[in-house]
Amino acid sequence: MAVTDIATRTYDHGFRLDPIVRSLLDTDFYKLLMLQMIRHLYPDVQATFALINRTQTVHLADDIDEAELRAQLDHARTIRFSKKELIWLAGNSLAGQARIFKPDFIAWLADFRLPDYRLARVDGQFELQFAGPWTHTTMWEIPALTIINELRSRAATKGMGRFALDVLYARAKAKLWDKVERLRLLPDLVISDFGTRRRHGFLWQRWCVEALKEGLGPRFIGTSNVLLAMDNDLEAIGTNAHELPMVLAALAESDADVAAAPYRVLDDWRHHYAGNLLIVLPDAFGTASFLERAPDWVADWTGFRPDSAPPIAGGERIIRWWQAHGRDPADKLLIFSDGMDLDSIEATYRHFDGRVRMSFGWGTNLTNDFSGCAPDGAMGLEPISLVAKVVTANGRPAVKLSDNPDKATGQPAEIARYLRIFGEEGRSPLPVIV
Amino acid sequence: MAVTDIATRTYDHGFRLDPIVRSLLDTDFYKLLMLQMIRHLYPDVQATFALINRTQTVHLADDIDEAELRAQLDHARTIRFSKKELIWLAGNSLAGQARIFKPDFIAWLADFRLPDYRLARVDGQFELQFAGPWTHTTMWEIPALTIINELRSRAATKGMGRFALDVLYARAKAKLWDKVERLRLLPDLVISDFGTRRRHGFLWQRWCVEALKEGLGPRFIGTSNVLLAMDNDLEAIGTNAHELPMVLAALAESDADVAAAPYRVLDDWRHHYAGNLLIVLPDAFGTASFLERAPDWVADWTGFRPDSAPPIAGGERIIRWWQAHGRDPADKLLIFSDGMDLDSIEATYRHFDGRVRMSFGWGTNLTNDFSGCAPDGAMGLEPISLVAKVVTANGRPAVKLSDNPDKATGQPAEIARYLRIFGEEGRSPLPVIV
Repeated sequence: MAVTDIATRTYDHGFRLDPIVRSLLDTDFYKLLMLQMIRHLYPDVQATFALINRTQTVHLADDIDEAELRAQLDHARTIRFSKKELIWLAGNSLAGQARIFKPDFIAWLADFRLPDYRLARVDGQFELQFAGPWTHTTMWEIPALTIINELRSRAATKGMGRFALDVLYARAKAKLWDKVERLRLLPDLVISDFGTRRRHGFLWQRWCVEALKEGLGPRFIGTSNVLLAMDNDLEAIGTNAHELPMVLAALAESDADVAAAPYRVLDDWRHHYAGNLLIVLPDAFGTASFLERAPDWVADWTGFRPDSAPPIAGGERIIRWWQAHGRDPADKLLIFSDGMDLDSIEATYRHFDGRVRMSFGWGTNLTNDFSGCAPDGAMGLEPISLVAKVVTANGRPAVKLSDNPDKATGQPAEIARYLRIFGEEGRSPLPVIV
Repeated sequence: MAVTDIATRTYDHGFRLDPIVRSLLDTDFYKLLMLQMIRHLYPDVQATFALINRTQTVHLADDIDEAELRAQLDHARTIRFSKKELIWLAGNSLAGQARIFKPDFIAWLADFRLPDYRLARVDGQFELQFAGPWTHTTMWEIPALTIINELRSRAATKGMGRFALDVLYARAKAKLWDKVERLRLLPDLVISDFGTRRRHGFLWQRWCVEALKEGLGPRFIGTSNVLLAMDNDLEAIGTNAHELPMVLAALAESDADVAAAPYRVLDDWRHHYAGNLLIVLPDAFGTASFLERAPDWVADWTGFRPDSAPPIAGGERIIRWWQAHGRDPADKLLIFSDGMDLDSIEATYRHFDGRVRMSFGWGTNLTNDFSGCAPDGAMGLEPISLVAKVVTANGRPAVKLSDNPDKATGQPAEIARYLRIFGEEGRSPLPVIV
């Protein structure tokens, strides 16, 4: 029983790469749900995704070595879904429904690989783009983000001493557990991990998810990370994202079709999924106009995920809308997932408790909160607002307005056109932290 | 490269005992310094040591399984000094002096083993006694304390979940590092680890010592734990203890000899050791009477370790005494080691800074501060005031008065006699936490 395993140590001598992405399931569940629908309805659409660093003060290309980034991206392109993973996807009941992924989709996944990328350095930032079939480029969103975020963490921790590193993670664990103990005081809490994309690193996200499973018990309902859900017998959590209305609006031939795109997405969706997967994401082009023009059947859906409005104001607006449409909010679900942390979770919980069903998707502040944890105030561990967004569909520019103008994406002329179509009501700037 | 080493796992299946004491060097350095002198001058004295739990609210025999305690004590009796350890003791410069341990003493250590013990359970406490030659029973002090303290920690952590345990140690590490960062603000700090006897456990003490070495650099001058000093290339720190004047006073034939015993100890000591080892421990029978009657040559010694008076008042008294004897306190050393923690270290440092050389021996609050660290408020991790004291010498009762009457030990009639001999001046009760 050697304290040091000789084979491991010898292998480590020749260590080439510590891969950040080791499974195509190491992604958010909604990507797979959306992918099945995209492949079914829009197999020929070409969509380009691009990395957008909203934290311009952080110069990613100065912090991260380009060769290391290429090595990680290249490694991710070598990965295939394993047999075990495909069997689990096919056989597991997900989101309360059996066999949600159809056999033809599973068969198609078996041959899936991530498409090529374009990478350049411009003014201290990386220009990273993924062009090709929407069915393939969409799957780069999460691995691209996790790779860059973890490379940034590795750069920040490089050169730290053995005990400084030990203390760094000790403090982060202590900090998370303090949050767990506060969350336990909310008896009917329903919370899940949404922190894959901006995690400090995979192993740290795994620790957080397993700690929440032990610490919160049934209050912790699962994780958006499909791999962690599989490995820990947790529910995979997620529904859909802004890319669906963004692509459909970009493809629209007329302003009227642009205006109708958000509802066409929901109509597509309800023909593929049901129950807990019928969650409306209303803010792609502004929640106010979305609610105003929404057909009555949208009020039959299970719930809403207000994603860029302040949680209490955003939730109240949706509750008023349900009431105006004769629905009882107590039967409905609100999912809060925009930059939540303990204070906003507690305030939102207490505000809506008993009036509506609530669920929290806890993201960056779960899996990447190292504030105050670094010995000697080491820099580079604060999370940044990094996204990978669809920028064109079949060559036409894609736009997101959001309820928060600081989260808008797209070319200025197109944003102006969308604002004419959807109006500006209810949009107000909020600081974008993560 | 298996993640789990099969041989280790198979060994673990049959695990019989996780020994708490694995080396006879896992003791305080002063025990070895005293032992060399005891063997030289008092080889025939019989001394009985006894465990004394001053925290009577903690019922050790209810918390700790007697069979486990016996197994650990029995295991400690099987240990011998290893060749490597004896070579290190013989060859290393300790406390600034080369070859402090003489060849005949090293040769004698090679055959050393801990003597037998007597163990009984009485009213929820353990009666644990070590009777025999002083040269052997003295060496039980530290292993007896570390075994009982670590068994208590193990009882407290038994049954805790994997993540609860992870968080427990994460919080304790974070807490210690916060202290390290505060200590760094004291530019001329000189501090060492004195925490062996009341440590949470051996591995935790090792973490603390190694963390201080990395975190404090040259401000951290070493550890009283000889094994940790050897393994980490640190200085072994320590001088002498109350047992010397206690035994010599017990052996004295007249009250006058009792009164002279504290100075006879110092006279013995200065014929064995020099330099930094000439540290006076003045409080065995009260510091006031000690200073009043001390011969002038005591003022030539390097420093004092006031061990039961409040540090600032105790230090000021010694400084006045040096001045009254015409010595410059700036050339002298005060070692503070009685229940020190950050607040008292900072206050003492700031009070004496520039007036006298200072060194801190940081004990229980370094190696056993888990206050506020246990998830779910698990009990049993707070340190207790446990000591192992000499109770008889050649069958005659031994007494310690201390500056703090709550730290006195001995039979009431003998304590009364000693108080008549030494007087009560300057003794005042202070809470005994650890």
